[in-house]
Amino acid sequence: MSSTFGHLFRVTTFGESHGPAVGGIVDGCPAGLHLTEADLQPALDRRRPGQNRLTTPRREEDRIEILSGLQDGVTLGTPLAFLVRNQDQRPGDYVALRAAPRPSHADYTYQQKYGIRAVSGGGRASARETVSRVAAGAIAAHLLRERWGVEIVAWVDAVGPHRANVEVGSVATGAVDANDVRCPDAAAASLFIEEIDAARRDQDSVGGVVACVARNLPVGWGQPVFSKTEALLAQAMLSLPAAKGFEVGSGFAGSALRGSQHNDAYVARPDGTLGTETNRSGGVQGGITNGEPIVFRVAFKPPATIGQAQESTDFEGKAVTVEGKGRHDPCVVPRAVPIVEAMCALTLADLALRQEARRVR
Amino acid sequence: MSSTFGHLFRVTTFGESHGPAVGGIVDGCPAGLHLTEADLQPALDRRRPGQNRLTTPRREEDRIEILSGLQDGVTLGTPLAFLVRNQDQRPGDYVALRAAPRPSHADYTYQQKYGIRAVSGGGRASARETVSRVAAGAIAAHLLRERWGVEIVAWVDAVGPHRANVEVGSVATGAVDANDVRCPDAAAASLFIEEIDAARRDQDSVGGVVACVARNLPVGWGQPVFSKTEALLAQAMLSLPAAKGFEVGSGFAGSALRGSQHNDAYVARPDGTLGTETNRSGGVQGGITNGEPIVFRVAFKPPATIGQAQESTDFEGKAVTVEGKGRHDPCVVPRAVPIVEAMCALTLADLALRQEARRVR
Amino acid sequence: MSSTFGHLFRVTTFGESHGPAVGGIVDGCPAGLHLTEADLQPALDRRRPGQNRLTTPRREEDRIEILSGLQDGVTLGTPLAFLVRNQDQRPGDYVALRAAPRPSHADYTYQQKYGIRAVSGGGRASARETVSRVAAGAIAAHLLRERWGVEIVAWVDAVGPHRANVEVGSVATGAVDANDVRCPDAAAASLFIEEIDAARRDQDSVGGVVACVARNLPVGWGQPVFSKTEALLAQAMLSLPAAKGFEVGSGFAGSALRGSQHNDAYVARPDGTLGTETNRSGGVQGGITNGEPIVFRVAFKPPATIGQAQESTDFEGKAVTVEGKGRHDPCVVPRAVPIVEAMCALTLADLALRQEARRVR
Amino acid sequence: MSSTFGHLFRVTTFGESHGPAVGGIVDGCPAGLHLTEADLQPALDRRRPGQNRLTTPRREEDRIEILSGLQDGVTLGTPLAFLVRNQDQRPGDYVALRAAPRPSHADYTYQQKYGIRAVSGGGRASARETVSRVAAGAIAAHLLRERWGVEIVAWVDAVGPHRANVEVGSVATGAVDANDVRCPDAAAASLFIEEIDAARRDQDSVGGVVACVARNLPVGWGQPVFSKTEALLAQAMLSLPAAKGFEVGSGFAGSALRGSQHNDAYVARPDGTLGTETNRSGGVQGGITNGEPIVFRVAFKPPATIGQAQESTDFEGKAVTVEGKGRHDPCVVPRAVPIVEAMCALTLADLALRQEARRVR
Repeated sequence: MSSTFGHLFRVTTFGESHGPAVGGIVDGCPAGLHLTEADLQPALDRRRPGQNRLTTPRREEDRIEILSGLQDGVTLGTPLAFLVRNQDQRPGDYVALRAAPRPSHADYTYQQKYGIRAVSGGGRASARETVSRVAAGAIAAHLLRERWGVEIVAWVDAVGPHRANVEVGSVATGAVDANDVRCPDAAAASLFIEEIDAARRDQDSVGGVVACVARNLPVGWGQPVFSKTEALLAQAMLSLPAAKGFEVGSGFAGSALRGSQHNDAYVARPDGTLGTETNRSGGVQGGITNGEPIVFRVAFKPPATIGQAQESTDFEGKAVTVEGKGRHDPCVVPRAVPIVEAMCALTLADLALRQEARRVR
Repeated sequence: MSSTFGHLFRVTTFGESHGPAVGGIVDGCPAGLHLTEADLQPALDRRRPGQNRLTTPRREEDRIEILSGLQDGVTLGTPLAFLVRNQDQRPGDYVALRAAPRPSHADYTYQQKYGIRAVSGGGRASARETVSRVAAGAIAAHLLRERWGVEIVAWVDAVGPHRANVEVGSVATGAVDANDVRCPDAAAASLFIEEIDAARRDQDSVGGVVACVARNLPVGWGQPVFSKTEALLAQAMLSLPAAKGFEVGSGFAGSALRGSQHNDAYVARPDGTLGTETNRSGGVQGGITNGEPIVFRVAFKPPATIGQAQESTDFEGKAVTVEGKGRHDPCVVPRAVPIVEAMCALTLADLALRQEARRVR
Repeated sequence: MSSTFGHLFRVTTFGESHGPAVGGIVDGCPAGLHLTEADLQPALDRRRPGQNRLTTPRREEDRIEILSGLQDGVTLGTPLAFLVRNQDQRPGDYVALRAAPRPSHADYTYQQKYGIRAVSGGGRASARETVSRVAAGAIAAHLLRERWGVEIVAWVDAVGPHRANVEVGSVATGAVDANDVRCPDAAAASLFIEEIDAARRDQDSVGGVVACVARNLPVGWGQPVFSKTEALLAQAMLSLPAAKGFEVGSGFAGSALRGSQHNDAYVARPDGTLGTETNRSGGVQGGITNGEPIVFRVAFKPPATIGQAQESTDFEGKAVTVEGKGRHDPCVVPRAVPIVEAMCALTLADLALRQEARRVR
Repeated sequence: MSSTFGHLFRVTTFGESHGPAVGGIVDGCPAGLHLTEADLQPALDRRRPGQNRLTTPRREEDRIEILSGLQDGVTLGTPLAFLVRNQDQRPGDYVALRAAPRPSHADYTYQQKYGIRAVSGGGRASARETVSRVAAGAIAAHLLRERWGVEIVAWVDAVGPHRANVEVGSVATGAVDANDVRCPDAAAASLFIEEIDAARRDQDSVGGVVACVARNLPVGWGQPVFSKTEALLAQAMLSLPAAKGFEVGSGFAGSALRGSQHNDAYVARPDGTLGTETNRSGGVQGGITNGEPIVFRVAFKPPATIGQAQESTDFEGKAVTVEGKGRHDPCVVPRAVPIVEAMCALTLADLALRQEARRVR
């Protein structure tokens, strides 16, 4: 269960950063969907390390191979297994770390939980694990787009103390990818890039926020009371490495408002359905999509691995100085954009199928 | 699945506010735990409407009855079913609402999802549903306390624009319940009460934040990668009515920091284990408890039902003026305190049992 | 999980024979189904002890109460909770049994598993637990009948060494209930009744077989590879108290045949679909319904509780003589008929909804 | 869910016979278990086609590769993914079959369910799918043996009308593998081999029964009421291709007995626990292991693909003559022996971990 996400459209993932491969199995994807490896590769390329100067210099080509579930480029309705071979492994980078747990890393908790001191620290706590999420999420996004016209767009909304200003109704992937930091607000993007460059120069790291919108959703997705749309999105996002917060619609800021300021009045739409004038609800009411865009934000802490010396304690309880030697990103949010989109797609594809099952007449 | 939470310690809930009863079944509670209805009633009393002037005047006695799973006050290891009869139903309050969906309520989404216009709007979207969570959570909290000594304490951390200052290491239930608004910071409590009173006077409502700490946790709970501790807590909290945000440890504020500011250095504890000097991680690393207190915050929007007139649109698309007539809380957070504790307990009890299953030697 | 059955149409049950009540929650039943307690009571009456001279004299009225999920006799799509209060409890009957585990009963295994010596032996191993299955199954059967026209009919196919001869294509509930032993073959029914009477006279018990047919099924239900239709039916049936075997279609007898004797040739049906000339497959191919009737048989052992003295050993390992004193059936199969139908309906309703979720176009 | 088995020790499988690979992911295997590919290969070799003259001449080398979850030959507690590349594909064998569904094959039901006419008929209905089960089962069997000393041995118990006589208390794998037909009763083995040879000569096929015993089990495994040991074994076995029946202990024969003949009296064991004098219960009481060997039998139909001409109907409803051209086994039971053992191990490993989670003191 712990490596499985979803109830009807469900992915099970595997893989450590220092083993032979990462990958997963998507079970429950409907039959008859046109799908090839070329539909998945672009999402992996956006997640790939070494894609530009803001990310880790560790390079992985991350070629995906689909192992099952297809015939002549069409899904069979059977499990879709996929695989990405690991490359450019330098376990030597990690050997020196084994005497002391890296601060704010999962080395210590993994060791205590599993009783094994892994060469890579917490192998599944590595960002490498997210390759499988991105591949599976690309399948989900493809299904959502083909069958319901759903669009999912994420972007970097904050880096350190700076915040962007983005129009959620119209933001598009092209604008997001127009710069290395993946922020469609050009002015903010400049500040973000400066901030990340400064952190790297200081052998330090910096946190940030990714925002995401899902548009063209039908009314009715979401399964109260424990599988409400926002509940599953929250689980999905907080399962990401380095994620520390999630908010939907008005979020934390909304908790400071009055009801009369916060309520979204209904308006008649041209097609006879109801919409809302404002969208502080973030596209959900009572856990169910209301047809407005789902809008949410995810907070990511600064990466734990930094080049600066840090005073800490080794596994035996002796004081030590720890210095990060691996090749890591100074800021995770530019590469987190496709990962957030992937987890959003996995969540919505599952809820879409669960709603289909309710439509028995 | 949608009304079930947990994998090994799992609760399934039922009940609408206007049906005969609410309740649930806890399956997976270990045998041999001393438990009676008296262990559960106090939590329900803390959640009960009408308990003081800050809450709705709607009164429900909320007497719990346990229907199975016990013999002579000891759990048998079989399902524990429990029941709370509904009282003081005034469906008349709701009839007038049926022509138009209440803004920011679930009336419209429930109707579109299920194809039924329910007398109570979105029946399972009502706060009444949380009775079952509180009862089940009290069983979980009892198990956690008896077997592992875990303490869970939540409190009101913000109301409207005001915020409290609370020491998470020592905050106790007695201090929380010392005032009606359930905030252990007395100065903040006064501001909170004023804010809620003002909202009520204005026939309006106001939002707020509940914070929660879980102490005395062993290292090793949490199931990467999709059932990380913070991921399941996030799901649990965002499944609550009116919840719009979740953050653990440093949360959104942490995303503005540098890694050198954020990292928690390890320190040797007297018992030979490792602790951390600071706790910006919020008690989890890589999704696994590290022995430090879990600390998280949950944002709640202002209640959607307000007495003020609101311009909106009816189900047929015609402009209408909506006025709330039900008896509702002007602010949900004081009563949300035991609910947040309950969902925290359910999440941790499940992860506790899942870790037991891993300890095969 | 252990008291939950089903993935989309799922029931969770509770209750010991000597506690206050038995019941359950059905989650996932589609909205808009007409349903009242009167739709469920007849199935409970068929399962009820004391209904005729072939069954235990223990009488339970077994009145069902639905606690949630309905409005004006129509399902809301929310959980349907139901409750049957226990009556006529005579714990005194069981006290004498506590020194020694009853042979072939669950007293010993329950005690070893849960670490509790329950007053009722293995409380959830009692046939009383099946009340919840029958109630939930009646909801499932109602859904299957209303939405797809599915008919499920079970009957007693063997008692002791005698076997009936029944036409599966046309057998109907009226013919099944025409006699107390629930066998539509009148000649076999006489032999069955004689056999059960003889067992009772001898203070003994006797085993038997229940057969079941489900008709009017669409092609395509069943979820390979682990949730094949026959796999879930097998789980459902072997989860029943006293069940020792399951076979579908040709079953064990089919394993003695040649492929040329066993294969079901396809024939064109008037409606343009394909049927099969024979039905040795029992309505499933590759785990998926093929449109032919599902036919299966379930073997039940003789009840373990008999009046005769039996030489055995007590919990401390000392030789003892055990004599059954509870009021039990000399043969379970007549009352097992509605229970087998219920579990068949629960299995098929779940697979029906799972197939709906696959029909995304 | 449909390609996932198990709750805590869970396998998810993938792969069609005509795609690039088959394999799976085992999630939940405890950390610290010594495991290499060499521990799994022997089970695959026993399942492999072309291993002797009784099986299909189709040869697959079936080399297993483990992709994750290991470090220096020890499990990390993270998902174990494994892969077997397909070889010797001859899609040409199948092309001619596409005009008409093969009788008693899954071609028609797969097409109707998924809406795709697959080149291989029902790709996941192929025996090739069982490679993944055998590999995962070998991991489970290894865990059961290393941690609890559990032994699982299956054998061919019947072929066509002939039946073996085997001592379940002592039967060992060496004796099973002493002949090609995998029956430790040498006299029966000769009859079985003759029967299979005769079927092949006639361009026909023949059914059979596999029996299995699991020994050295602790008391207390099994999760009433829906995950009783025998219920999950029944699901596991009926999920196998060609399986039509399952019985545990006395099974169908036991349903003809009286209670006084059937009950298993308790006896004191030297170690202070209780055993039973006889084992008609088959090692389970109330769904929970009682410490006696689990004994069960699985009926397999004759393979549907035969060389003889069969009169049938094509997809369009026209009469056709069908002749099998693929390379298939005339009898599945010799190769089903390791598959039955694998599914038994997967079932028991999951129940073992589920019982560990209950042992909270």
